[in-house]
Amino acid sequence: MEIRDGEYPTYEMKDGPGVNKANVGRKTPHGAILKTVATNICGSDQHMVRGRTTAPAGLVLGHEITGEVVDVGPGVEFIKVGDICSVPFNISCGRCRNCKERKTGVCLNVNPDRPGSAYGYVDMGGWVGGQAEYVMVPYADWNLLKFPDRDQAMEKILDLAMLTDIFPTGYHGCVSAGVTTGSTVYIAGAGPVGLAAATSAFLLGAAVVIVGDLNKERLEQARSFGCETVDVSQGEPVEQVYDILGRDAPALGQPLVDSAVDAVGFEARGHGANAETEMPATVLNSLMDLTRAGGAIGVPGLYVTGDPGGVDEAAKVGSLSLRLGLGWAKSHSFVTGQCPVMKYNRELMMAILHDRVQIARNVNATPIPLDDAPRGYEEFDRGAARKYVLDPHGMISRRAN
Amino acid sequence: MEIRDGEYPTYEMKDGPGVNKANVGRKTPHGAILKTVATNICGSDQHMVRGRTTAPAGLVLGHEITGEVVDVGPGVEFIKVGDICSVPFNISCGRCRNCKERKTGVCLNVNPDRPGSAYGYVDMGGWVGGQAEYVMVPYADWNLLKFPDRDQAMEKILDLAMLTDIFPTGYHGCVSAGVTTGSTVYIAGAGPVGLAAATSAFLLGAAVVIVGDLNKERLEQARSFGCETVDVSQGEPVEQVYDILGRDAPALGQPLVDSAVDAVGFEARGHGANAETEMPATVLNSLMDLTRAGGAIGVPGLYVTGDPGGVDEAAKVGSLSLRLGLGWAKSHSFVTGQCPVMKYNRELMMAILHDRVQIARNVNATPIPLDDAPRGYEEFDRGAARKYVLDPHGMISRRAN
Amino acid sequence: MEIRDGEYPTYEMKDGPGVNKANVGRKTPHGAILKTVATNICGSDQHMVRGRTTAPAGLVLGHEITGEVVDVGPGVEFIKVGDICSVPFNISCGRCRNCKERKTGVCLNVNPDRPGSAYGYVDMGGWVGGQAEYVMVPYADWNLLKFPDRDQAMEKILDLAMLTDIFPTGYHGCVSAGVTTGSTVYIAGAGPVGLAAATSAFLLGAAVVIVGDLNKERLEQARSFGCETVDVSQGEPVEQVYDILGRDAPALGQPLVDSAVDAVGFEARGHGANAETEMPATVLNSLMDLTRAGGAIGVPGLYVTGDPGGVDEAAKVGSLSLRLGLGWAKSHSFVTGQCPVMKYNRELMMAILHDRVQIARNVNATPIPLDDAPRGYEEFDRGAARKYVLDPHGMISRRAN
Amino acid sequence: MEIRDGEYPTYEMKDGPGVNKANVGRKTPHGAILKTVATNICGSDQHMVRGRTTAPAGLVLGHEITGEVVDVGPGVEFIKVGDICSVPFNISCGRCRNCKERKTGVCLNVNPDRPGSAYGYVDMGGWVGGQAEYVMVPYADWNLLKFPDRDQAMEKILDLAMLTDIFPTGYHGCVSAGVTTGSTVYIAGAGPVGLAAATSAFLLGAAVVIVGDLNKERLEQARSFGCETVDVSQGEPVEQVYDILGRDAPALGQPLVDSAVDAVGFEARGHGANAETEMPATVLNSLMDLTRAGGAIGVPGLYVTGDPGGVDEAAKVGSLSLRLGLGWAKSHSFVTGQCPVMKYNRELMMAILHDRVQIARNVNATPIPLDDAPRGYEEFDRGAARKYVLDPHGMISRRAN
Repeated sequence: MEIRDGEYPTYEMKDGPGVNKANVGRKTPHGAILKTVATNICGSDQHMVRGRTTAPAGLVLGHEITGEVVDVGPGVEFIKVGDICSVPFNISCGRCRNCKERKTGVCLNVNPDRPGSAYGYVDMGGWVGGQAEYVMVPYADWNLLKFPDRDQAMEKILDLAMLTDIFPTGYHGCVSAGVTTGSTVYIAGAGPVGLAAATSAFLLGAAVVIVGDLNKERLEQARSFGCETVDVSQGEPVEQVYDILGRDAPALGQPLVDSAVDAVGFEARGHGANAETEMPATVLNSLMDLTRAGGAIGVPGLYVTGDPGGVDEAAKVGSLSLRLGLGWAKSHSFVTGQCPVMKYNRELMMAILHDRVQIARNVNATPIPLDDAPRGYEEFDRGAARKYVLDPHGMISRRAN
Repeated sequence: MEIRDGEYPTYEMKDGPGVNKANVGRKTPHGAILKTVATNICGSDQHMVRGRTTAPAGLVLGHEITGEVVDVGPGVEFIKVGDICSVPFNISCGRCRNCKERKTGVCLNVNPDRPGSAYGYVDMGGWVGGQAEYVMVPYADWNLLKFPDRDQAMEKILDLAMLTDIFPTGYHGCVSAGVTTGSTVYIAGAGPVGLAAATSAFLLGAAVVIVGDLNKERLEQARSFGCETVDVSQGEPVEQVYDILGRDAPALGQPLVDSAVDAVGFEARGHGANAETEMPATVLNSLMDLTRAGGAIGVPGLYVTGDPGGVDEAAKVGSLSLRLGLGWAKSHSFVTGQCPVMKYNRELMMAILHDRVQIARNVNATPIPLDDAPRGYEEFDRGAARKYVLDPHGMISRRAN
Repeated sequence: MEIRDGEYPTYEMKDGPGVNKANVGRKTPHGAILKTVATNICGSDQHMVRGRTTAPAGLVLGHEITGEVVDVGPGVEFIKVGDICSVPFNISCGRCRNCKERKTGVCLNVNPDRPGSAYGYVDMGGWVGGQAEYVMVPYADWNLLKFPDRDQAMEKILDLAMLTDIFPTGYHGCVSAGVTTGSTVYIAGAGPVGLAAATSAFLLGAAVVIVGDLNKERLEQARSFGCETVDVSQGEPVEQVYDILGRDAPALGQPLVDSAVDAVGFEARGHGANAETEMPATVLNSLMDLTRAGGAIGVPGLYVTGDPGGVDEAAKVGSLSLRLGLGWAKSHSFVTGQCPVMKYNRELMMAILHDRVQIARNVNATPIPLDDAPRGYEEFDRGAARKYVLDPHGMISRRAN
Repeated sequence: MEIRDGEYPTYEMKDGPGVNKANVGRKTPHGAILKTVATNICGSDQHMVRGRTTAPAGLVLGHEITGEVVDVGPGVEFIKVGDICSVPFNISCGRCRNCKERKTGVCLNVNPDRPGSAYGYVDMGGWVGGQAEYVMVPYADWNLLKFPDRDQAMEKILDLAMLTDIFPTGYHGCVSAGVTTGSTVYIAGAGPVGLAAATSAFLLGAAVVIVGDLNKERLEQARSFGCETVDVSQGEPVEQVYDILGRDAPALGQPLVDSAVDAVGFEARGHGANAETEMPATVLNSLMDLTRAGGAIGVPGLYVTGDPGGVDEAAKVGSLSLRLGLGWAKSHSFVTGQCPVMKYNRELMMAILHDRVQIARNVNATPIPLDDAPRGYEEFDRGAARKYVLDPHGMISRRAN
């Protein structure tokens, strides 16, 4: 992890680390160039940093980008220079069947390897990442979410910066899990996505939001905005969930939770005595345990098709030993995959702009200069209860002063 | 498997094989007694017959019941003696939260062990099965679907007999998998539930319905009503699916199917060279392989929480080694569990009564006398491409003559 | 409007004012008798009091009932004496097609005249109203929502008393209008249902909630919990909505609202100079005006099939002159009818019990003794910004002291 | 109505009859030029021809276009010269909020007057119509639906030509009305949209499809593919619907239909003795009459904001006297507006290509040369039971020979 001088972006894809050959030379007259106002460090970047993917050296990371448009290609009609915009982390074309069906997380036209793409990410087509001073966003009229007012946007920039990924991702996890007014919800993981999911659960009207993690500082952060918490280092969460919700007739599906969200993904560790051991199926199995019959499970946490650092042969190819018999007996449903950010980001922006939600406060968004990115990665990896927001041009820090 | 003399039912649950103690003595003034007109042999009964469950000896089987009401309890208000009715296989109370939410497959009030129940089934509360001359149906006003006209009902009785379980179950699998107008669909399994799912896929407007199985006779039955077929003994189905749908850009999620249904469940065998070997995760893993990014998978096939005959320790507790990383990369969703029959049976009855669907023909419904039940079980277990319908009072055979 | 001595209820319907002859003598062994803890005065009662319906003299009013079970009929299995319960205002059987489809507002089995019923209401079958000390609730296991804890229930009784009608009704209006995270919403009417709709809009995550009315005191009440307001006596609301949301490109459907709710119904008065004149189509026409293209309109406000006091011949038969051409050009959808309370009341109860919403405060719930009911009706009719809660046994007032 | 020489299209909008000034000079590098293979005469064109709109003389009509791409603008990436494509009648940008929400019938960026647009239509922005030899389609990558195979497409061209408007429009009407497996459905109007709706109802699994009209030839056409019919010149349809569905307990909402579709719109005539008189609210009022409580009504038939030829002052501004009190008592919902074609056309194309539906046969699609267009308009206006398909290049007729 290091800071390097990069090239100013153009409207053509160049060869480089991780760039799919079929994309080299691809023209993007529909693109816009953004000066990055904020670009966050994401937990899924950590998988690459830790060598848990096939990411090549030299890859420019960064898929959580908020920026100011400084140039537009000749095919851009509605986005204008000077617009402050949020960039959904999933790149999509706005022309294929999946985009038309709002499934922008599996766009068919941007990644020659397989459906779905992202900036600065392994196996995602080779689009240059946004942890940089400038970044090119293709299909700008489709992808960019313009903030209605520049000053208002800069005032709430730390909240708005969460629209690129973790806020919609947490929200999608909750929606997928059927969270609605009065729901009881369990969120596995108190990292930024977990905290965003908890925030979303409240926004969706949940009655009780329980967050489980091994990290005491992150659990403290969850409690700071009204969540109940479960320390999974103390054992299986289902017992602690009973303590919170009451113990009437657990056999009959009560007081288990209505909805559960996996905000951990494939690098999960075990519970209780296994808290130091990587056990990739732990989270999903415990969610089947503590979700009531008829409930639903959202799985925004990342599971991968190949993991060079997997604990065993199964894990290396993305296989998990799941207690599906238990889930089946309870008629559980499971929704997996990248959040299709564009399905939610406008609505969540409105909630931010009208002060209905404090996402930056809840995830403890912390701006740092671009040069401090390596420190941010390191602290985040050690479990800091913070969401690091890189501030390449000092636009955020200048405001704060 | 044998025929025994049973007792005429009453409005009180009695002790007996498989009856939950907490249910012994339970009064059912809301019940009705039905003379069984048709009671089908179900693939899920086979699991018990083969010793793949903890079912005790002496259990009266039979959860696919169609009958004539011969008596009603004092609490029954709308169902009348003489009504010909379909009995949903899942017993439900019509008073609990799950029933009110249409999740009758996980009713909270009928099984002291856990949510969900069925007639004549292990761990389902101990309600006496319907492979008998008479059966008591509790909460009759809620559970029974009355056919509007007696003569019309007897004319289409072999079709209507499929409303208790397999037709709604196949339909639920398709609905869960998002099947709609123009869909391409893969159904794993050409047994009665698979054929019912294929029939449902056409009814829902599917463009292409592909059925996979190891059994040539059952595949022939699928082809008889317009399905494409895949012989999984020849290898992984994805290759044969390409041959059917075309080979353009499979990497990009086309021509894979939009929707897939698992109509096999936990006793799955492998594909190709493994066709003789039980490999419980085979079906689900192949469905993730052949379903397009953005597609969905319905899992009406039964997975269990405990399987004494499981191939390994994981299987014995209902754990499967699933390639969830692959499903996640494609944003798949999975819907599991018992079909909540009451959500669909009235609509499907209307389609049958107005000749929009020929479910009996498609599943090759074959009436046999109650005394021939052991033979029916045996032939079905050997893979006959038939759905056996027991005819305890000869009401079906008399009509046919 | 007067207080009379009534009879203690039994499990059989008796003849009386407004009782459908076909219901006389109907047995209700499935019923429970409740001691009324709270029974609210509803705006729809006012229509009857004002002679705007064919309601006969002597009708016992009251369809917003919360009570303690003091007796259960022989067919009741799960509800117990001592339970404190909310009674949905719509009576439903839990056995017909519509109930099974969650459409309890149009139950087929409780009103011989037409689908749908309510306690103490004209043309609704003749079920005795609950503005009384005791009331009989039929199909008790189905209809009653039990509060989990008696003490907790009495602590929040003024909030929970809103679950019988106005809170679900307002919520249904919002759900029907597509209100979700980030929505901009216009609520026509700041009476109790309008304020409940506004409360629901916030609970559903709305960004901006605008309430319109002619009554300044009620608008003040709306502002007290964060609503924007529009005084429709000053003219058409669309202009004031522009002032609130901004004036960019109104021709293109922005900044009109995403969702609108009619919480007024058929006794609407005009806007601006017509504010003293009854003009029954005013509200719906203005909602089409101020809702954006692609938006939706919920119509929980009551429209009737016959109105003896209607302003013209059309109004007397429930006809309205609607600008449907305008709504069509904007692809509006409209959802009308009684709220099916059971679809929402459990979820809203959970939100109340876990302090996610302050419905009693927002609608200014005001308990008064049963003897003061005539005064409550009168003040409410004059436009008091209060929701009157009758307290027949002094159970609410005793707690407060 | 006459044939004139027009100009070959370019990638820039020119001034002309009906062109919005704000659109003059608009560049469309994202457009494609299509050689029209088929371009249908639509009932909504008739409104303009009959002077029931403010359409100017000289407007080039034609919004139902199927064509072969002969040129693409510089901003087109995925559509290629030679592709045979269906053009949704609603023009949309694929970049605005409504397009992203799949509401392409109310796109915000193509018509400066108001949301929503179409080719060759009054008040729709001024896009040149397609009843011509060539036509320019903007935002081609977004708007065009490419048929997978050229030869297969030409083989089924009369069916595929219905994808531009009437087939999705009829389907949308049914979907909006909740048509599903086993539904009973009433379609008002046996013109092409009504017949397409009836076809769609069967495709969606309806049990009974009843079509009402005054025109005996069109009713005969409806019967030709299995519909029941009602001759509304004989009186209110509700009585004839009872005769078809049975007469049990009509007061209780049975046997009224589950779903109804208005495929007539604002030029409706009365029923029975009023069959010669224009009565614009007739259809919607009768649909509330004959739809069961809890049912839904789809309104794809066109209602307008201004009608110079309206029967009275109300009609001239698009107001209708609707019995909303009746609809409210039955909890009806109403969905209005242009069909968002792109939401359905791919699925319906799949159903056509795989022989699941015979839309051309059902609507009696009849190809005629472009020069015969005036005759087609005239015959259609007189009530011919045909859907006229103009064949400007003889590509359809040559195939047939």
